[in-house]
Amino acid sequence: MTALSSPQITVEDYEQAAKTLMKALFIREKYSRLAYHRFPQTVAQFLRSAENQTWKEEDGVLPDVCPCPREGEDPYNIENIPDNLSYELQTKDGIVYVYENAEALSQNRPRSLPYPDLETFAIDLSHVLAMIIDGPTKTYCHRRLNFLGSKFYLHEMLNEMAELKELKGVPHRDFYNVRKVDTHIHAAACMSQKHLLNFIQTTYKTEADRVVLEKGGRKLTLREVFEHLNMDPYDLTVDSLDVHAGRQTFHRFDKFNSKYNPVGASELREIYLKTDNLIDGEYFARIIKEVSHDLEESKYQHAEPRLSIYGRSADEWDSLSKWFIQHKVHSTNMQWIIQVPRIYDIFKSKKLITNFAKMLENIFLPLFEATVNPQKHKELHVFLKYVTGFDSVDDESKHSDHMFSYKSPKPEQWTADENPPYSYYLFHMYANIMVLNNLRKYRGLSTFQFRPHCGEAGSITHLVSAFLTADNISHGLNLKKSPVLQYLYYLAQVPIAMSPLSNNSLFLEYSKNPLREFLHKGLCVSLSTDDPMQFHYTKEALMEEYAIAAQLWKLSTCDVCEIARNSVLQSGLSHQEKKHFIGANYLKDGPEGNDIRRTNVAQIRMAYRHETLCNELSFLVDAVKTEAAIGTQPE
Amino acid sequence: MTALSSPQITVEDYEQAAKTLMKALFIREKYSRLAYHRFPQTVAQFLRSAENQTWKEEDGVLPDVCPCPREGEDPYNIENIPDNLSYELQTKDGIVYVYENAEALSQNRPRSLPYPDLETFAIDLSHVLAMIIDGPTKTYCHRRLNFLGSKFYLHEMLNEMAELKELKGVPHRDFYNVRKVDTHIHAAACMSQKHLLNFIQTTYKTEADRVVLEKGGRKLTLREVFEHLNMDPYDLTVDSLDVHAGRQTFHRFDKFNSKYNPVGASELREIYLKTDNLIDGEYFARIIKEVSHDLEESKYQHAEPRLSIYGRSADEWDSLSKWFIQHKVHSTNMQWIIQVPRIYDIFKSKKLITNFAKMLENIFLPLFEATVNPQKHKELHVFLKYVTGFDSVDDESKHSDHMFSYKSPKPEQWTADENPPYSYYLFHMYANIMVLNNLRKYRGLSTFQFRPHCGEAGSITHLVSAFLTADNISHGLNLKKSPVLQYLYYLAQVPIAMSPLSNNSLFLEYSKNPLREFLHKGLCVSLSTDDPMQFHYTKEALMEEYAIAAQLWKLSTCDVCEIARNSVLQSGLSHQEKKHFIGANYLKDGPEGNDIRRTNVAQIRMAYRHETLCNELSFLVDAVKTEAAIGTQPE
Repeated sequence: MTALSSPQITVEDYEQAAKTLMKALFIREKYSRLAYHRFPQTVAQFLRSAENQTWKEEDGVLPDVCPCPREGEDPYNIENIPDNLSYELQTKDGIVYVYENAEALSQNRPRSLPYPDLETFAIDLSHVLAMIIDGPTKTYCHRRLNFLGSKFYLHEMLNEMAELKELKGVPHRDFYNVRKVDTHIHAAACMSQKHLLNFIQTTYKTEADRVVLEKGGRKLTLREVFEHLNMDPYDLTVDSLDVHAGRQTFHRFDKFNSKYNPVGASELREIYLKTDNLIDGEYFARIIKEVSHDLEESKYQHAEPRLSIYGRSADEWDSLSKWFIQHKVHSTNMQWIIQVPRIYDIFKSKKLITNFAKMLENIFLPLFEATVNPQKHKELHVFLKYVTGFDSVDDESKHSDHMFSYKSPKPEQWTADENPPYSYYLFHMYANIMVLNNLRKYRGLSTFQFRPHCGEAGSITHLVSAFLTADNISHGLNLKKSPVLQYLYYLAQVPIAMSPLSNNSLFLEYSKNPLREFLHKGLCVSLSTDDPMQFHYTKEALMEEYAIAAQLWKLSTCDVCEIARNSVLQSGLSHQEKKHFIGANYLKDGPEGNDIRRTNVAQIRMAYRHETLCNELSFLVDAVKTEAAIGTQPE
Repeated sequence: MTALSSPQITVEDYEQAAKTLMKALFIREKYSRLAYHRFPQTVAQFLRSAENQTWKEEDGVLPDVCPCPREGEDPYNIENIPDNLSYELQTKDGIVYVYENAEALSQNRPRSLPYPDLETFAIDLSHVLAMIIDGPTKTYCHRRLNFLGSKFYLHEMLNEMAELKELKGVPHRDFYNVRKVDTHIHAAACMSQKHLLNFIQTTYKTEADRVVLEKGGRKLTLREVFEHLNMDPYDLTVDSLDVHAGRQTFHRFDKFNSKYNPVGASELREIYLKTDNLIDGEYFARIIKEVSHDLEESKYQHAEPRLSIYGRSADEWDSLSKWFIQHKVHSTNMQWIIQVPRIYDIFKSKKLITNFAKMLENIFLPLFEATVNPQKHKELHVFLKYVTGFDSVDDESKHSDHMFSYKSPKPEQWTADENPPYSYYLFHMYANIMVLNNLRKYRGLSTFQFRPHCGEAGSITHLVSAFLTADNISHGLNLKKSPVLQYLYYLAQVPIAMSPLSNNSLFLEYSKNPLREFLHKGLCVSLSTDDPMQFHYTKEALMEEYAIAAQLWKLSTCDVCEIARNSVLQSGLSHQEKKHFIGANYLKDGPEGNDIRRTNVAQIRMAYRHETLCNELSFLVDAVKTEAAIGTQPE
């Protein structure tokens, strides 16, 4: 008899489940703190109370990852850059270590920063891995989640009209002018297909004789490129452009990736959607700036586009930051995220790198360099002000034979042709970001959030790795499949950027998407577009995403405004901006932290969410404390 | 054992079914011709062949309902208006009769025009009513529809890529620049909620002291109106505006109608959404012109907004046409439809009219007047150039106790408080439009299409009435429930303007909407918004409608372009415009009639549709002919 078919649960089972869940929360809190990731105050307060301690305001991590330039300040200003230090850097086990000076390096005495401890991490990981298949814990979480669903349904029936009344009473503010952040969008697909088409046609009309590509040693003008492709840009249509995902892409991530090539021609991707091409990425910068111009016009919409760093070579960062500054790509309505594709195997097979450590070094060492010696890397230093996080991307449904553990080969020893598994990537990215954030905090610089793609497809263990290492995730579809993880993501209020239209084209039909269910249960979900070029039809991709969700799932105004508020919370926007957009006390949980005049989320809803979360957490704390009390009684 | 559970069908049953289906097609053809409604060439050809006759091109009705003004021509030009005639008009049995002169009137000798014959109509109606519940006919149609569905599925699997290849080869043309007509949209809700909000705020900002309303004998300025409502327009939001349909409107058409009142205040509806108020409908005209301006900018989108004529009094037409011309409401991207709400019972209870004939007279007599004596009704004459049809609107789910038959009271005798049933309304509207169209054709003027709301809810018999009387319908959801009617609408290619987002808010969840299924089987469906103010979120309501349908149902480019082509076919656009938008030979069926360079519909698809329809029709004709041959054989 499986646990789920028998909802019977004994008191011991219940206490055991509560204990493991609490432990998982402690684990997440630990890794969050280490990396300057955010952790909700309410949850931290309950954790302290379980330890019979008192939570203090200063325990919280202020997520000021990216202080935005002040009004009138030049965002590309290279004055006031901190001094260089005489620090030394060295990569060990794929992680960058920092040394006070050459001597400390020779004596192998790294600076005192929290460095990762693989063994502890592996133990922590295995704790959460074990609990997601533990029968009683599954039963417990399953029942709590069902309860959360039913409770919201009741809340809705009782308070729907009262919520609406509250919203009607809010002057000025409605769904259209609450801030919304597109929390998951790839820069190379951030424009609509129609926009890209028009852009290509415009460049051809005005700059056909410009040299734009080097191929086989020959420099080609735009005209020659199109002649070579045997097509006239005037005749191009969105059909022949063929960048939209159709029925053919469902469960075919491989086909989907090729959609990034306009007209199926990698030449056009190279010319229009790359930052480091013969024209220094000018076209790509220009089209992104057209997108950000539209966002600025709309005023209330923001986006967090992802730019790629591959780890193929060490100069990618210099090239990317040069592109950013040369073309003045900064916008007040865009925060930048760096996506790292998990394609070690491709670079290895092309003999671009010898082992996995080299890839990690290419990705992270330049960031440590720029943090230690910013005067030597002025452009990168400036660019990093606008980078708020890292993403790890690729097809999660690809299976890996390797099981990550503390016995896994170290990155330097990972010389195999096979790609390391998802967890291996995540740990090593997290570890470097953690060290880097501590170093940057010490230097008074911005820190980064780790925001991987996770749970779009593939094994549910990905969601375990991210539970430890990620500030927040994109997709999270597979939480559907694991009650324990779903409940943990709820308890820890891990933000999840969901993209139901993207899922609909790739992995899961719209009607089966769990977004509505997650939202109702109280998980911290936001809506995002992923790839407007491939999925959306209208000029306003994010609004299209909201419109479809609102209509198909009959979401109330309060629902959509709650999603919008979540998107601001989840985003890499600065503390000042968040205060401005969702209220001065936004770090506080519950109605206290909500400024309805800015968020248009009913206080009744906020109170419901807060009370419900406190209720769930106090169950756990009580169970643990009872057990502890019994345990300490004299026998 | 019911017919549907036993798919067994004998040869006799089959022939009988074929015969009744053919008869229904003959009936529709007859009523279509009488009213200058359109009837597809292919079907007409098969009907002729069943009668052993040959179809001739001139048998077709050229649906030139509204010749658009030529480039540079003043659309409000009141020169070249035809002369008055000395005709006399008289309403009899609710239908307007035309007399050559006073003498003919006194001798009761109406002009030779086809007048309706209620008895024949009732017999024809009962034929179709009987067949929709006939077991063998149901089985036959059910099987044919299943066959059509499976056949399309096969077609799709075999030809999807070939269709796509065809489309990719078409220069310039893609989904974004094929013509799309919003075939069903109400003028009073044709703007988005956000647009209406901004408009209200703008008028307040610039014209707060303008007298805009008379209430209880007192004239009020805009400022006073808002003071009276106790609100500041600056504080208004889409939430407090409250015109969007929410979860509360599902299966509550009554609640839905009240959504036309901004902030729940009928005063604001009066000021902003009416044509005959104290400011002569200026605001309503202005906001409509903002909508048409956007359509003209978009170039490829058209709309057919519905304006109301109620039949409450005889001067409604003069007032409406004055409004239209005074405010220059004409747009090249809008054709106008007159909607007549089925609310006799309300006028009767308010003692505005004494019987149903009076309502009909108020609606139709002015049109006959303007047709006979255009010099006396110049403004109405000009306005009618841009009116392309009539709609009959109201909540179809309201039940009526009365069963329409030739024994029903004549409109003059309909003095009861109850509302006449749907069929009664339809017959009398059709009858008047039929006579009017013949009169107008004789005078060389434009004719009108009857395009009622039908099959949104309520009894499926509504769809029977419309099968006889309508050029095309809006909604048609209930065809889902009757295989016979669904098959008849397929065979006769009756255009259906569907609005799945509207249905989703009012009557049927999106996932259960039959649009996709109808499209695949080959019914002539188009997409329309119904009420952007109430249902849509983005600035481009029609694109939102297409985007959601395309994404949710994974429609191919060819599918959506076929829908767009259907919308042009269905619309009241002129013959010249249709030739320009979908190809010079558009009246021909099959690939011959398709100009892929304009429609972006693959010829493979057109050929499939045409062959499939011919195949279905030839089955019927063969069955009828075989039977006839057997019948005439010497025994």
